[in-house]
Amino acid sequence: MEFSSKLLENAVNEMSQLPGIGKRTALRLVLHLLKQPKEQSQKLAATLVKMRDEINFCANCHNISDSKLCEICANPRRDEQLVCVVEDIRDVMAIENTSQYRGHYHVLGGKISPMDGIGPGDLTITSLVEKVKTGNVRELIFALSSTMEGDTTNFYIYKQIEPYNITTTTIARGISVGDELEYADEVTLGRSILHRIPFESSLKST
Amino acid sequence: MEFSSKLLENAVNEMSQLPGIGKRTALRLVLHLLKQPKEQSQKLAATLVKMRDEINFCANCHNISDSKLCEICANPRRDEQLVCVVEDIRDVMAIENTSQYRGHYHVLGGKISPMDGIGPGDLTITSLVEKVKTGNVRELIFALSSTMEGDTTNFYIYKQIEPYNITTTTIARGISVGDELEYADEVTLGRSILHRIPFESSLKST
Repeated sequence: MEFSSKLLENAVNEMSQLPGIGKRTALRLVLHLLKQPKEQSQKLAATLVKMRDEINFCANCHNISDSKLCEICANPRRDEQLVCVVEDIRDVMAIENTSQYRGHYHVLGGKISPMDGIGPGDLTITSLVEKVKTGNVRELIFALSSTMEGDTTNFYIYKQIEPYNITTTTIARGISVGDELEYADEVTLGRSILHRIPFESSLKST
Repeated sequence: MEFSSKLLENAVNEMSQLPGIGKRTALRLVLHLLKQPKEQSQKLAATLVKMRDEINFCANCHNISDSKLCEICANPRRDEQLVCVVEDIRDVMAIENTSQYRGHYHVLGGKISPMDGIGPGDLTITSLVEKVKTGNVRELIFALSSTMEGDTTNFYIYKQIEPYNITTTTIARGISVGDELEYADEVTLGRSILHRIPFESSLKST
């Protein structure tokens, strides 16, 4: 792509560093900013820098938070002995949206993925093991994506906490609500039969 | 969407003001910036602000440019009597990529679109008519998108410059190179027969 202006080219190049934003999309976004008042670009820039500079992570669960402890960890009515292990803050938001969970979280910050150069040391696993060691955790729920990386991470953590003898569970895998059986993949369908639940308990769920 | 941090929420809100970026995509982009070094966010912010503050438009054709005249207008080897009317800078880049055009451009900055609140006054039509008035234009090529808004804009400009008696042309509409005839829409196919060209001249094109 040849640009008639160096300023424009720089802006497009910076924008296209963001994931999923190619050069064409970046150009569209930058041209949009050019059509808007200067204040919009300034506000966008200032907000991003402020966010990046001042953002905090909860000292307990590593969720993004403005205070030392996030709202969930600071809430005395939530069960701190029940800890749900998730990949990132988006998963916390997704689970919170269901209003079904009243325990704490532990945000790993990613999954073990040697292909992307992410090892156990890049995640908050040590701090999770410490938490378990202190004996203040009754049950650990694994809620990572059901992928090779997710399973690897689950297993790695499981091996680390095995000596401490706490309950470990994983969220149920099965047929999504509203899905037609005939289109479900074999592995999911197979597991959903293996891990069938009493009919009465299915009536309780929302 | 409920956020655990006000800083994060503000950043996501600003990001999602950009066209085609929803809240979820904005969150993904912002979380990506959080995982990168601070310098990346700072550089992105600085480049955007600098671009918005310092960008210039060519005094002649309204293309984005770092100097008073853009490279095309400043090039004495280009035919200034031949002017191609386009919607925005992306069209200039697309036509320049073909290496088939050696004239000047005139960037309108949009199309007349009452639905979006864009009238003739929001475009650079007055400056185009002025250019034609001075008598320094031999031919005007309309190269706007073949949509209702594009056709309206073409016609509006045509009416304005009619008194000055210059040649006006429009880029050829027809079957795209590589397209199968049976899948072409009727209007395009019909026009391509009406506006057929001598076979010899089709051999000249690249």
